[in-house]
Amino acid sequence: MGTDRCFWGWGFEGAGLDATEQRALAQRVQPFIPIESDPIIPPTPDEIHLRSPRIRPPDSIASWCRVDAASRAGHTYGKSFADVVRALERRWERPPDVVAAPPDEAGVVAVLEWASRIDAVVIPYGGGSSVVGGVEAPRGDDRPVISCDLSRLDRVLEVDTASRAALIQAGVLGPSLEAQLRPYELTLRHYPQSFEVSSLGGWIATRSGGHYATLHTHIDDFVESVKAVTPAGLWESRRLPGSGAGPSPDRLLLGSEGILGVITCAWMRLQDRPRFRASAVARFATFEAGARAARALAQSGLWPANCRLLDAGEALMTGAGSGEAHLLLIGFESADHAVDDAMARAAMLARDHGGAIEIRDRSASATGPGRTDAADQWRSAFLRAPYIRDSLVCLGLISETFETAITWDRFDVFVSEIKASAEEALRGAGAWPAIVTCRLTHVYPDGAAPYFTILAPGRGSSRVAQWRDVKAAVMTAINDGGGTVTHHHSVGRDHRAGYDLERPALFAAQLRAAKKVVDPGAMLNPGVLIDP
Amino acid sequence: MGTDRCFWGWGFEGAGLDATEQRALAQRVQPFIPIESDPIIPPTPDEIHLRSPRIRPPDSIASWCRVDAASRAGHTYGKSFADVVRALERRWERPPDVVAAPPDEAGVVAVLEWASRIDAVVIPYGGGSSVVGGVEAPRGDDRPVISCDLSRLDRVLEVDTASRAALIQAGVLGPSLEAQLRPYELTLRHYPQSFEVSSLGGWIATRSGGHYATLHTHIDDFVESVKAVTPAGLWESRRLPGSGAGPSPDRLLLGSEGILGVITCAWMRLQDRPRFRASAVARFATFEAGARAARALAQSGLWPANCRLLDAGEALMTGAGSGEAHLLLIGFESADHAVDDAMARAAMLARDHGGAIEIRDRSASATGPGRTDAADQWRSAFLRAPYIRDSLVCLGLISETFETAITWDRFDVFVSEIKASAEEALRGAGAWPAIVTCRLTHVYPDGAAPYFTILAPGRGSSRVAQWRDVKAAVMTAINDGGGTVTHHHSVGRDHRAGYDLERPALFAAQLRAAKKVVDPGAMLNPGVLIDP
Repeated sequence: MGTDRCFWGWGFEGAGLDATEQRALAQRVQPFIPIESDPIIPPTPDEIHLRSPRIRPPDSIASWCRVDAASRAGHTYGKSFADVVRALERRWERPPDVVAAPPDEAGVVAVLEWASRIDAVVIPYGGGSSVVGGVEAPRGDDRPVISCDLSRLDRVLEVDTASRAALIQAGVLGPSLEAQLRPYELTLRHYPQSFEVSSLGGWIATRSGGHYATLHTHIDDFVESVKAVTPAGLWESRRLPGSGAGPSPDRLLLGSEGILGVITCAWMRLQDRPRFRASAVARFATFEAGARAARALAQSGLWPANCRLLDAGEALMTGAGSGEAHLLLIGFESADHAVDDAMARAAMLARDHGGAIEIRDRSASATGPGRTDAADQWRSAFLRAPYIRDSLVCLGLISETFETAITWDRFDVFVSEIKASAEEALRGAGAWPAIVTCRLTHVYPDGAAPYFTILAPGRGSSRVAQWRDVKAAVMTAINDGGGTVTHHHSVGRDHRAGYDLERPALFAAQLRAAKKVVDPGAMLNPGVLIDP
Repeated sequence: MGTDRCFWGWGFEGAGLDATEQRALAQRVQPFIPIESDPIIPPTPDEIHLRSPRIRPPDSIASWCRVDAASRAGHTYGKSFADVVRALERRWERPPDVVAAPPDEAGVVAVLEWASRIDAVVIPYGGGSSVVGGVEAPRGDDRPVISCDLSRLDRVLEVDTASRAALIQAGVLGPSLEAQLRPYELTLRHYPQSFEVSSLGGWIATRSGGHYATLHTHIDDFVESVKAVTPAGLWESRRLPGSGAGPSPDRLLLGSEGILGVITCAWMRLQDRPRFRASAVARFATFEAGARAARALAQSGLWPANCRLLDAGEALMTGAGSGEAHLLLIGFESADHAVDDAMARAAMLARDHGGAIEIRDRSASATGPGRTDAADQWRSAFLRAPYIRDSLVCLGLISETFETAITWDRFDVFVSEIKASAEEALRGAGAWPAIVTCRLTHVYPDGAAPYFTILAPGRGSSRVAQWRDVKAAVMTAINDGGGTVTHHHSVGRDHRAGYDLERPALFAAQLRAAKKVVDPGAMLNPGVLIDP
C-alpha cells in the first residue's frame, strides 16, 4: 500500500482491490445482480484535463500552493458514489483553481486574506473523505475556488496527562494521531470508517460518528475546546471540562461543515488504552427482536462499546454470517476494570429477547483482544468496504449507503418504510434487482441509528441520475418518518434537500446570521448547510 | 409547609427556619463569625410599595394577568443574596408592570404579541430561583416590563415508554414533574438544589446541573427536542436520539437564558427508577488527595452517580463530618444490575489515593436505599441550605456560593488561588472573619467543578456593595485561572463581567446575530448574556 492518496477514488494509491480480488467480487455479486460489462479502468493522471487556474497565488504563499492537475483533480470531489463515477468518467467539474496547503495557522490566515482580496471561495479540506459533496465547489458561483488543504497541520502539540487531553492540529489523519498519542498510553479512540483518510478537523466539522456504539457516539463529547480561523479573525473557545455559561460555543462549530471557519486545532478528551475486553455475538430470528435486545442494552446503563446489529443480508454480504440470522455484536472494554460481569448481564438481556449467544474469550479478556470471529470479520470488512465500493462502481453498479436515526417508538415501522421506499425508488429508477441491507451503527436509550447499504445495477451514463432519484426518494421517506437526514455522514450538498426540511426554519436563519458575522463575504464553503 | 411561594426569599411561605431554629443557627455561627444585631424581620405583604403599573393587559389576556403588589414583588427578583437583602430592605427596584401567567402556549404567543405591540420587555419566568439576576428587569431601559410566568404550563403531555421519553411543559416544577412520571415507573432524575422551586424550562434555559456527579452532569444530555415561542414565530426541533445534521439546534437554546425565546415544552430523555444502590464515604487527610481519588473515579469509566468531595470545613458546616477529614461521597445506582462490584472497585481506587473507606448497606443494596449517614446528612443539608441562607441573611451575614470548572492539570493551584482571592476580597471589603469552604459538585475525566461557599459578617446597608466587590474579585481570579464563570448557576446579569471575558468574542457577536433573527426588537430578557 502506498502513502499517496488516490486521486479518483477512496484511500491510498494501490490499496484497492487487485484484478484477482475484483474478479472474485464480481463472481460473488453475480448471483444477486447481473454484471454485464467489463470493469471500468480507472483514470491515470495523464487523462486529467482541467480548466486552467483562474488565479495565481501571491509569492508570499506560492511555495505551499499547488496548481498541478493531479492535485487539483484530487481536490475536486469528495468520495461519494457520484464523485467516483465522475472521476471514472474523466470528468472533473469545477476543480479548485489552487490547492493551498498552509504549513501552519498563520498560513491559514494568509489563505483567507488572499481569498478575501480576490473574492474567492475557500473550501476547507481535511482528509477529503466526504461522501455528501462537502468539499466540492458550488455550482452557479463563478468566483475562483481555493481548496484549503490542512494536511500539514498534522501534529499533536501538547499532551496533558493529568486531564487526559491533548491539543491536536486539525489536519492530522487518524493513524498519525493515534501514533502520536501512543507514547503517552492514550488514545482518542475515534474510529469512523474513514479513519485512515479523515482528519480531526473533518470529524469536528461533520460531527463524525466513531468507535463507541453507545454513550459517546459522536466526536462531539470529546471536544474540550476548538480554535478556528475565520475571515473576521480568530475564534477560540476555552478549555473546560464542563460549563453552564450560555449556549456552548463549541457546539456551534461542531457540525458547521466549514461554513463558520477553518478549524485549526482542538483540545480533545482522550482515553486510557483499554486492557480488559469481552465480546459476544447474539443471533436473532428477526431484525426486530435483535433491535429490542439492542434497545434493552442501550437502556441498561451498561454502555457497551460495541452494540451493532447486522441484518441477515448485511451479515451475509460482509462475511460476518451465513445470511440466516440477524447478528448483534456486543463488546465491552475498559482500561480500569474487568468487564466480564457486564458482558454476562448483556448476554442475559440478549437472551431475554430471544438471542442465541456465543461468548468468546471471556477467560482471556484481561489480556487478549477478546474478539469474536464474527466481530473480527465484520470489522475488517468495515474498513475495507470503501475500497470494495470503488470496485463495485468500476463494475458498473450503484453502491450507496445512507444513515439516519429514529426514536424507538417508531423504529420498526420506520426501518421497514425506509427499506420499502429505497426498493421502490430503485425499481422506479430501473436499478433492479437490488440488495438493500440494514445495520444499526449506534444505539441510544431513546432510539437507534439505522444504516442502509444499497447495491444495484447501474444504467451506463445515467447511473448518477439514478442514484440522485433514489437518494431523493429516501430523503423524503426519512423526513416523512421523522428521522434525521444524517446521523454521522453530515449534510454537505447532497443532503441539503432533507436537511432543509429537518432543521427549524428559524435555526437556519440564525445559522445564516452567525455565518455572516464571521464570513460576511460568504467565502467559506458556500451552499453547504445553508444558502448564505 | 405552605404551597404559596415566599415573595421575599427562598421557596415556600413558612418553610424557612422558625425562631428556635434561627437562634440555634446563630449560636452555631457565633464562634466563627460574631453576630452583632437582632435578626431582621422579613417583610409582610402590606409593606410592599411599588411604582404603579405603566401598562394594562388587553382584555383578551387580562384574566390570567396579575398586577397586585405581592405578585409583582415576588417576580421582581430571583433568589440571590442581593435579591433577598433588597427584599428585606423593603426595596423592589424595577418591578414588572404585569405578571402574565398564560395557561398554554397560545397564551405565550399572545403575551409576545402584546409586548411587541407596546414595545415592552418580556422576562421568561419559570420557578424564579435564579441566583444570578436572571429574571429581573434591566437597568437603564425604560420600556414597560412583563414577567411571563410559565407556572401554568405544568403538565407531562405525552409519555413514550419505548423510548423512555416524555413531552413535558416547561413550567412544571421538579416535584410535580416527578409525580407525573411515577405512574410510568420513570424519572427524569434531575435534582438541582432548587428542585422544588425550579422548572424544566428554567433548567434547559440555564443548563442546570443535576443529580449525576459524573457522565450526564447537566440537563443538556437529557434534552431530545425543544419547542420555544419567539417574537419571530415558533422554534421547534425534531425528536431524535442523535443526529449529525449540522450544528445541534437544541444546543443553541440550551443555556440561552430567555434571550432567544420562551421555552414552552421539551421532549426529555428519562430513566428507569433505580433499584440497586451502593454508597460509601472515603475520608482523606488533604483535599488534594481527595481530588486525586475523585479524578481516578471520573477517569475509571465506572460513572458513579455520586462523587462529591467536601472539604473539611464544608463537611463540618453541613454536619456531614467533624471537620477533621475531607469526605468523598461515592454512590452507584442502577435500575438494571447490581452495583456492588462497581462500588468495590471505586473503593479500591479511593484507597489507592489514601482514602479511608466506609462502605454502607452493601448487602442491602438490592433493596434498601443504600445510603450512608454522611451522605444522608449532606443531602438533607443540601436541600435545606437555601432556607438556611435566608436566615443567615436575616442575621446580617453575607452568604454566597460561587462555582466554576477547571481541568485537572490546573486544579490544585486553581482551587487555592480562588480561595485565597475570595479571602483577600472579603478582608478588603471588611467582611472578616469569614469562612470559605469548597466542595466538588461534579467531576469529569478532564476536570472538576469546584463549588465555594462563603459566610462573612456584613456591614449593615453596605452588604450588597461588599458582596459585589467579592464577586468581582472572584470572577477576575476565576478568569485569570482559566476556569468558567459558572458551571451550572448560569450567567444572568451578575456574571456578565466574567462571561464577557470567557466566551469567544466572535461567538458573542454570533449570539447577538442569532438573537436578532428571533427577537429583532430585543424584548426578551435584554442584557442577560449579551447586550442586544
